[in-house]
Amino acid sequence: MKIHELELFLIESDRCDGPDRPRSLLVRMRTASGLEGWGESAFVWRPDELAARRDSLLAALSGRSVFDIEELHLLDALWPPPIRAAVEMAAWDLLGRVLRQPLCNLLGGFYRRRIPVSVRLEGCGCETAANESRELAEQGFHTITVAGSGIPDDDAAAVKAIRELLGDRITLRLDGQGLYDFEVARDICAELEYEGLQYFLDPIKTAEIHPSAVLGRQTNVPLALWRSIRAGGDVFAAARCGAAPFVVIDLEQLGGIAPAKACAAVACAAGIIPVLGCRASSGVSTAAMLHLAASTPAISIANEIAPCQLRDSVLADSPEIVEGMILVPESPGLGVEVDRSKLERRRPIV
Amino acid sequence: MKIHELELFLIESDRCDGPDRPRSLLVRMRTASGLEGWGESAFVWRPDELAARRDSLLAALSGRSVFDIEELHLLDALWPPPIRAAVEMAAWDLLGRVLRQPLCNLLGGFYRRRIPVSVRLEGCGCETAANESRELAEQGFHTITVAGSGIPDDDAAAVKAIRELLGDRITLRLDGQGLYDFEVARDICAELEYEGLQYFLDPIKTAEIHPSAVLGRQTNVPLALWRSIRAGGDVFAAARCGAAPFVVIDLEQLGGIAPAKACAAVACAAGIIPVLGCRASSGVSTAAMLHLAASTPAISIANEIAPCQLRDSVLADSPEIVEGMILVPESPGLGVEVDRSKLERRRPIV
Repeated sequence: MKIHELELFLIESDRCDGPDRPRSLLVRMRTASGLEGWGESAFVWRPDELAARRDSLLAALSGRSVFDIEELHLLDALWPPPIRAAVEMAAWDLLGRVLRQPLCNLLGGFYRRRIPVSVRLEGCGCETAANESRELAEQGFHTITVAGSGIPDDDAAAVKAIRELLGDRITLRLDGQGLYDFEVARDICAELEYEGLQYFLDPIKTAEIHPSAVLGRQTNVPLALWRSIRAGGDVFAAARCGAAPFVVIDLEQLGGIAPAKACAAVACAAGIIPVLGCRASSGVSTAAMLHLAASTPAISIANEIAPCQLRDSVLADSPEIVEGMILVPESPGLGVEVDRSKLERRRPIV
Repeated sequence: MKIHELELFLIESDRCDGPDRPRSLLVRMRTASGLEGWGESAFVWRPDELAARRDSLLAALSGRSVFDIEELHLLDALWPPPIRAAVEMAAWDLLGRVLRQPLCNLLGGFYRRRIPVSVRLEGCGCETAANESRELAEQGFHTITVAGSGIPDDDAAAVKAIRELLGDRITLRLDGQGLYDFEVARDICAELEYEGLQYFLDPIKTAEIHPSAVLGRQTNVPLALWRSIRAGGDVFAAARCGAAPFVVIDLEQLGGIAPAKACAAVACAAGIIPVLGCRASSGVSTAAMLHLAASTPAISIANEIAPCQLRDSVLADSPEIVEGMILVPESPGLGVEVDRSKLERRRPIV
């Protein structure tokens, strides 16, 4: 069963977060027999280079067996990692459809069928944050990640407001998004020492792992790393210097499902708790994460998947959300179908 | 597709190494539709307890989906790890047959089709060792592991004799088999410092990882660990203390193909070179290792598979050996068929 055709689609979200609408690149991979698989990346090319990019990818992929996943990871043509992740995701989806199995059956089975998720609260004041949290808690969500605003006092106030309103009905996380200097991050930790944060993600403005280890020794707020985890070796490095008890595994940053599974194994061996994370998604990469979480026992706490993504997805049927958990699709491959009309509607205006 | 039936077979080798003939336990797993998968372990039960053991295993497995590999690793009934490995191997074999794919296509694809192996030379004097090595080199093998005898001078003499006769036509390894005290191991290292060993495996009589790190700092002979690597965490521990640049990943010790693949990921992340290892095999577990090596790019150097095992196997057709490399079987599942008549002939006389 060989790769025969490839198509790239650039889509734009209906939502407007900040100055730009989030864009994604969708990859559609097809065998000669007409089966197709989909992949997604938040890294995008410009509309006018898509055709040339597609040709160069197809030249590297055409004629390869869809089973040869490991080989994809060694192809120079699949670069940068988010593109490799999108192509590999499409190959896995295709593989599942060829074998008529949901993807997680090829990754170790349905260990769990509902994936707990943490909802992100982005850029809202502390009162709004508290009210939104209450709504989310009433809908059944049990974990909330406050996305850092860049203003330390605002972040601390938002966390405190949510904790005051909801007490321990909710598990709270703060995502610093790598916005703060070391000293500022340390002050935030001191401020939030008794707020029972599950973790403070990417507290420091750095691509290095080591500063987090230094900070971790000065606070009892558990730390987590996301943006600096770009390969299994980074998880190993984080464990060796005791940088954080949690790591966020991002399919795009790591370059695919297979390296993400490997990273989870490294985290598990090193006694670090792995969490999956995804920036923007039109639904396709969310589905990939669901299958990975379903088949990996170690990925047990709430994942950084924004479930609001599922609302304006390009999927014919979005995976169902029940009590703050997303149900793993059980159809072959990723288990979701891309709705071509939604796709067309979301093409950016050039 | 659910597990329906289970059968256990105890077999005895025709060869006589030392006082006992090596025994293996074979597991045959069947679905209701009649498909079957085989697994193997060198850990055996007594002939008179087989029936009761089989009943208790079947009670834990019956009705489970063959896809739920990860769940097998969390079942208390599958203990000790070699039994878990045998059952999991049978489940993978069955899975491949259900999906009509060779196992390695479910593990990442055919990254390589020929698996280099290292031949073990056990308990022979230094002249015999040199002559056997020459024969092996003429047959095309390029890596030889001298199995330690327990007498340090004999081991050093065997290594030197082979090196003198064959020069750098052969890659040489010494397996200390955990037979020596720390000081003795250090003396052997000093003696063999200029013999260009690829590695000295399990030099010290200990189940700990740390002493190897201490020895490693006193010699320039590269060390390797096998018998102390019982989980991914041990690979991490070995890397953290710099115990050895090589680890041998043993399916049986680790409890299966999935944990072995995870261990290879840990080794890879930590910059340690993984090698597969297998004690005794009637051919079934050798096939499992071939598929694992075929689908894992990081497992690139010669594996500690005794190819002589393939000679007196219970397989209808043993995988072919070409120039010191074993060809990966391409039929569904493990790609090998157990010959029931060979199996019957090898039942031990109770």
